[in-house]
Amino acid sequence: MYPDRAFFNRLADAAKAETLPRFRTGLDVVNKEQKAGFDPVTEGDRAAELAIRALVEAHFPEHGFLGEEHEDVGLDRDLVWVVDPIDGTRAFISGVPVWGTLIGLQEKGRAIMGMMDQPFTGERYFADGKASWYSGPDGERQLRTRDCTSLSDAILFTTSPHIFGADLERYMRVQNSVRLFRYGIDCYAYALLAAGHVDLVVENSLKPYDVGALIPIIEQAGGIMTTWDGGRPEKGGRILAAGSKAVHEAAMELLNR
Amino acid sequence: MYPDRAFFNRLADAAKAETLPRFRTGLDVVNKEQKAGFDPVTEGDRAAELAIRALVEAHFPEHGFLGEEHEDVGLDRDLVWVVDPIDGTRAFISGVPVWGTLIGLQEKGRAIMGMMDQPFTGERYFADGKASWYSGPDGERQLRTRDCTSLSDAILFTTSPHIFGADLERYMRVQNSVRLFRYGIDCYAYALLAAGHVDLVVENSLKPYDVGALIPIIEQAGGIMTTWDGGRPEKGGRILAAGSKAVHEAAMELLNR
Repeated sequence: MYPDRAFFNRLADAAKAETLPRFRTGLDVVNKEQKAGFDPVTEGDRAAELAIRALVEAHFPEHGFLGEEHEDVGLDRDLVWVVDPIDGTRAFISGVPVWGTLIGLQEKGRAIMGMMDQPFTGERYFADGKASWYSGPDGERQLRTRDCTSLSDAILFTTSPHIFGADLERYMRVQNSVRLFRYGIDCYAYALLAAGHVDLVVENSLKPYDVGALIPIIEQAGGIMTTWDGGRPEKGGRILAAGSKAVHEAAMELLNR
Repeated sequence: MYPDRAFFNRLADAAKAETLPRFRTGLDVVNKEQKAGFDPVTEGDRAAELAIRALVEAHFPEHGFLGEEHEDVGLDRDLVWVVDPIDGTRAFISGVPVWGTLIGLQEKGRAIMGMMDQPFTGERYFADGKASWYSGPDGERQLRTRDCTSLSDAILFTTSPHIFGADLERYMRVQNSVRLFRYGIDCYAYALLAAGHVDLVVENSLKPYDVGALIPIIEQAGGIMTTWDGGRPEKGGRILAAGSKAVHEAAMELLNR
């Protein structure tokens, strides 16, 4: 049995009740268990995932669950939820409302439905299995990617050049070919791509829960999301999302030159 | 005669009526007059500044006006408005709600009042001459910067490492010393600093209208905003803003080592 839009909304509302009251409250978010690097895990992150899990278990006990914060359940089942309660924890802890709650559903390993919710701005991006939808302070509408025909006209987003490590040279070939590039907005970049404001997102080192909800939102808005070598993106890793075939092909050619 | 908060709100509302309807509409924003680099100027930018100018001229004809888009008026007068109708045009054209309308007032060259408005999120940051105030979807409150005692605990924002040019090495000494750094949110970073979510902003090549509204918002929230050598920031250039004296001093020491 598949969930409907109302159920996705219920999951996003449950997560929002845990995340939004903790946003901009100056909580101590330093992860004390993690000594190398900076890997913040907020109380909101954990609590929001538990809230989503509880609803899924109550209504769809036959489904599997892959989350960021707690143990995986039944990943071999036909339908598996793929959830990141707060994607963009750095944005969250620094007060910038471009983090999001990512709730995806996969069928036999393929992303089929998904929601990205930004509680502070009140924006919700949702793929229902056939089409993608936006709702926000400026109303509701169907999402369509932009048909950008050339990389030299494209707007590119990525988290930061620092994420690329040994892949930096490959990434830079793309950055040097676009009209405009910007850093730093995590899952929000994929939502803007689905909405036709942005043409390209290039990232690496992503986890399955970073992309699970976003794949159907982009695909069902007319966009393309793959790994850098053109494969299915459900497992994460090096990810390339584009609003048009022309931009996707041109970027992939540069990444693999 | 000084304006009151209601008048600042009126200016921000007039600008919002020109900017928000054009946000995320996919207007052609390529500046055809500018062949080198990317310097978008939107219709909203020009129209919002005209709307603000018209109100200022009608109510305070004795004041001067320094804007981004149109000719300066009476910069030698005691009270001068310093306005950037859309700070963060790149954010604006790529759909990210971290641009802002900046409305500042200077008296004899010193910033005394200012407002930063983000129309999509409904956030407004305002310095009334004595204190700084936030209003937004989560209510109203007085702004206070965070008393971060050490650079190694600080969160740093800057537009992009690409803005620094020959100053990159100086900037990088600071970036390498903080707990967390993020790129890409323009005036919104200063607002978050005034609100105590962020500890440090370091930028260069700023114009007077980029900083005019932000200086009083930060100072009247308890923060410090200077040039990299500790001078008054009203003329722009290399800017260093911090929420606490300790972080400001530590960053300035690294910038000038």
